[in-house]
Amino acid sequence: MEVARVSGKQDQERHLARLGEAIRALRLSMGTSQEALADTAGIDRSHMGKIERGERNVTLLNLTRIAAALDRKPSEILASAGL
Amino acid sequence: MEVARVSGKQDQERHLARLGEAIRALRLSMGTSQEALADTAGIDRSHMGKIERGERNVTLLNLTRIAAALDRKPSEILASAGL
Repeated sequence: MEVARVSGKQDQERHLARLGEAIRALRLSMGTSQEALADTAGIDRSHMGKIERGERNVTLLNLTRIAAALDRKPSEILASAGL
Repeated sequence: MEVARVSGKQDQERHLARLGEAIRALRLSMGTSQEALADTAGIDRSHMGKIERGERNVTLLNLTRIAAALDRKPSEILASAGL
């Protein structure tokens, strides 16, 4: 039985790309490097790069860490990405 | 070298528990069963139960599917969880 999906693969990739762009924009507005943000959030630097490029499906806990490092709430990060 | 963590393990578990409670509350306010929500969102029913109980680290794409099934934005779901 095929299960109806709420959104297709392209939508999903767009969501991740938009979140990555929002994180990058917030980071740049703080004048912080990607490496410094990764270290503050306790996330592997290579993984942070993939998140900013929309290449990784971010988990709530990593989103929460990134949001704290950006001095924002997780919901504010998603809202700034239009999600 | 030890990396500073933004939040501890207990905080993380609390975040997941709060998100799960918010999803459950929104679902009940719509009069929808957990099984129906899982099917609409295209998420395994057992996995949905674990998400509502705060036992799984939800990904952005699953949060997006759940939000769409609840007729909300992902940021609104997080905000309703106080995140």
